[in-house]
Amino acid sequence: MSAYDDLMAFVRETQALSQIAGRLEWDQETMMPRGAAPQRGEECAAIASVLHARRVDPRVGDWLDALAGTPLDDVAAAQLRHIRRDFERARKVPAALAAQIARVTSKAQGVWADARAADDFARFAPTLDEVLTLKREEGHALADGGDVYDAMLADYEPGTTGAELEAMFGALRPELATLRAAVLEADAPSRLTGEFDEAAQMGLTRKLAKTFGYDMSRGRVDKAVHPFSSGSGLDVRITTRTNPVDPFNCFYSTIHEVGHAAYEQNIHTDYLLTPLGAGVSMGVHESQSRIYENQIGRSRAFTGWLYGQMRDAFGDFGIRDEEAFYACVNRVSNGFIRTEADELQYNLHVLLRFDLERALVAGDLKVAELEAAWNDRFEADFGFAVDKPSNGVLQDVHWSVGLFGYFPTYSLGNVYAGCLNKAMRAALPDLDAQLARGDTSGATAWLGKHVQTHGGLYEPRDVIAKASGSAPSEAPLLAYLKEKFTGIYGV
Amino acid sequence: MSAYDDLMAFVRETQALSQIAGRLEWDQETMMPRGAAPQRGEECAAIASVLHARRVDPRVGDWLDALAGTPLDDVAAAQLRHIRRDFERARKVPAALAAQIARVTSKAQGVWADARAADDFARFAPTLDEVLTLKREEGHALADGGDVYDAMLADYEPGTTGAELEAMFGALRPELATLRAAVLEADAPSRLTGEFDEAAQMGLTRKLAKTFGYDMSRGRVDKAVHPFSSGSGLDVRITTRTNPVDPFNCFYSTIHEVGHAAYEQNIHTDYLLTPLGAGVSMGVHESQSRIYENQIGRSRAFTGWLYGQMRDAFGDFGIRDEEAFYACVNRVSNGFIRTEADELQYNLHVLLRFDLERALVAGDLKVAELEAAWNDRFEADFGFAVDKPSNGVLQDVHWSVGLFGYFPTYSLGNVYAGCLNKAMRAALPDLDAQLARGDTSGATAWLGKHVQTHGGLYEPRDVIAKASGSAPSEAPLLAYLKEKFTGIYGV
Repeated sequence: MSAYDDLMAFVRETQALSQIAGRLEWDQETMMPRGAAPQRGEECAAIASVLHARRVDPRVGDWLDALAGTPLDDVAAAQLRHIRRDFERARKVPAALAAQIARVTSKAQGVWADARAADDFARFAPTLDEVLTLKREEGHALADGGDVYDAMLADYEPGTTGAELEAMFGALRPELATLRAAVLEADAPSRLTGEFDEAAQMGLTRKLAKTFGYDMSRGRVDKAVHPFSSGSGLDVRITTRTNPVDPFNCFYSTIHEVGHAAYEQNIHTDYLLTPLGAGVSMGVHESQSRIYENQIGRSRAFTGWLYGQMRDAFGDFGIRDEEAFYACVNRVSNGFIRTEADELQYNLHVLLRFDLERALVAGDLKVAELEAAWNDRFEADFGFAVDKPSNGVLQDVHWSVGLFGYFPTYSLGNVYAGCLNKAMRAALPDLDAQLARGDTSGATAWLGKHVQTHGGLYEPRDVIAKASGSAPSEAPLLAYLKEKFTGIYGV
Repeated sequence: MSAYDDLMAFVRETQALSQIAGRLEWDQETMMPRGAAPQRGEECAAIASVLHARRVDPRVGDWLDALAGTPLDDVAAAQLRHIRRDFERARKVPAALAAQIARVTSKAQGVWADARAADDFARFAPTLDEVLTLKREEGHALADGGDVYDAMLADYEPGTTGAELEAMFGALRPELATLRAAVLEADAPSRLTGEFDEAAQMGLTRKLAKTFGYDMSRGRVDKAVHPFSSGSGLDVRITTRTNPVDPFNCFYSTIHEVGHAAYEQNIHTDYLLTPLGAGVSMGVHESQSRIYENQIGRSRAFTGWLYGQMRDAFGDFGIRDEEAFYACVNRVSNGFIRTEADELQYNLHVLLRFDLERALVAGDLKVAELEAAWNDRFEADFGFAVDKPSNGVLQDVHWSVGLFGYFPTYSLGNVYAGCLNKAMRAALPDLDAQLARGDTSGATAWLGKHVQTHGGLYEPRDVIAKASGSAPSEAPLLAYLKEKFTGIYGV
């Protein structure tokens, strides 16, 4: 097994370097002095270059060849599956193309930000066209004659196809639109008013992180402009943010990121710094963040406990009881922005992006037509018009940095969370009683055992199927949303 | 010039990776969750392995060969001088020996810490012997038949020899011992009493950092167990510490680290991420930290301003006037510990270590005899006996991690600071009037122009000689210390 040991030693060192690259990004968003940016750019480029050279290192191919036909246990076989997939992917993309994509997307993010600030899509369109052209070229190289969008998806959600997602999302969309329309015709619950001390928000947010099982001895919570989770294994850090008039933003950002972080923290320690030692896909990752945030964190039971915590932290903040608080937390209202959307409408925002980016990649939609297509689709799904590009087609950074195939994993994560929630509630009949005491340990232990501990051992669909007892489907999510929102709104 | 451009591009990437390694160390001492330590160990080993491979990369030798005989400007010639020296050094040490030193010293630091905690030198001696044997072997490989200790010195202070330092330090030692004895027979000034709010200490320490020209837009100040400065170029961070009964520790640690950091921040921007883009030697580095801390920061003029700042921050803290405060800041008292020593006695601590480590390296002193030799020498120089090993031979980490040849750079830095101070005061007759207003800009601009901006352009001795107008000598330091302490103590 010497080839396997040599290969794993090499890969382990690569994983360690990759963790370093992640730590630099964390530093950049939390600690780095602003004037360091140009130097940091070179530092990030240097480590990216080292990582790229290791990903295409011909020794990896030699080791893989030497191991062909060797009988392997499940873990070793899964390690090799990941290593082979990454190696083949890296080798398929010509180095010159990869370098050009890195250059153009790094510039494009600034162009996008300027265009968004100026509310002028035309400023961004030529650059987006350039990014799209390069990413399509990369997709063709990766697809080997197969579907280009599927090849892009494989970077984020291996084993899933655009056609499967189309079927799943196609079943979701009309039902969500109908539910949304009914809810928005009903009386809206109260919203939060007044100001909430930001230090007290951070205090409660740290308590929530621990409540959801985040291990502070292997992580830390800082403030950043955008909440994120960073790192794997023994060093998984999260960020959150505070807004004096919107404490829910702080608390639910934290719970969401703790879902991501707990996944990374709870992977079997045998997999540390190996390909199995990180979350298996964006969709499964998002299933953990969303089930923590929504199915657990925004449940009637848990919000009952949170109501008491907020009364302790902030005194009487104008919401009369647990029931009103539950409705307030889950308030549905019109809005343009995906990242601010409520649980009911969020997937409609994602489905819009999925359909548009698939059409862009297929060549059925031109970048020049994108703004109009966005605005038409938005009005069709949400019933009102986009007022300006920063509230529409320019709101997300993703396309500027070449993330085609990424958006659908948000909704796939919600679909997975629906499947897991159904199975978890069947397995834990006492769950609501626990959550009402602020005790999430039953839920997080179930997710830890059935999903998180496996890391990259199973394919994404398989880990969800094994945990939930059946193939992933949008039906449980839809049933859950219908029950929840018809209940709150009495429709 | 394509070979030069290729070489510099490669070296620039190496420098960027080296900055990343430094950033990881900063993170470890300031931000890292404790449970991340084992993973961080692997991360540091991975980046060290990448850096080592680049340092011995045969392409560097090829580029250097291709450039032999090419006419070069001063900057390019200096770049190549550094690159060639580093390359040859890296190639002279067999990889197996380098790896063994890394393994043994990484273990030895823990053994040293345990022995120090147990106050038992015998626990540490066998490990120290192992480290010394390996480092001597490395020294022989580096020395190419020359002096082994000089080869070790070259890692920290290229161009300086043990014999030169022996002559310089030999002239210092009796004079310092005499001055010390006279001062300690005189009446001691008051010491600080009471407690000093730690948040207020941090507030004033940040003000001091800015006062000394530290650029916060390219740096930051955090707390750590041991104060240090980290990084070069656009991202140079410092740490400090607070102790409720000893605010001077916080303030003068900060000023010291700002001296190191300002050196890195003020190097000519053309040298960013090149071999010239970092302080040229440990001795020159220490000259900057010490002149900021002592010749400027502990001057009568500057302490007059600091007295007012401390009264503003802490109210009446029991020191009656500026003169008494100046004497208090510069109080000389008996002590065992180098890092806590006052300006007058500090070099005696260093000279002791220099003589002992030179004897160890030469084989004239055995590790088994080291504790007794330390205790004898300490009593000879300081007039009282070491009470326990943690106050004597076990107090410093340096030897455990293989740093032989490092200690003398502390005193060499003080000698350099003496030379620079003399020249600076001759050039700036108005300096004390500026410092009395808390204005260090004249002094820091002079040091920036004559020392810091050059980075690695000149050899260490040359940069001091150019700035001070004559070859480095211990005489200015001695004259300065005599004038200062006979003045304060009236002896």
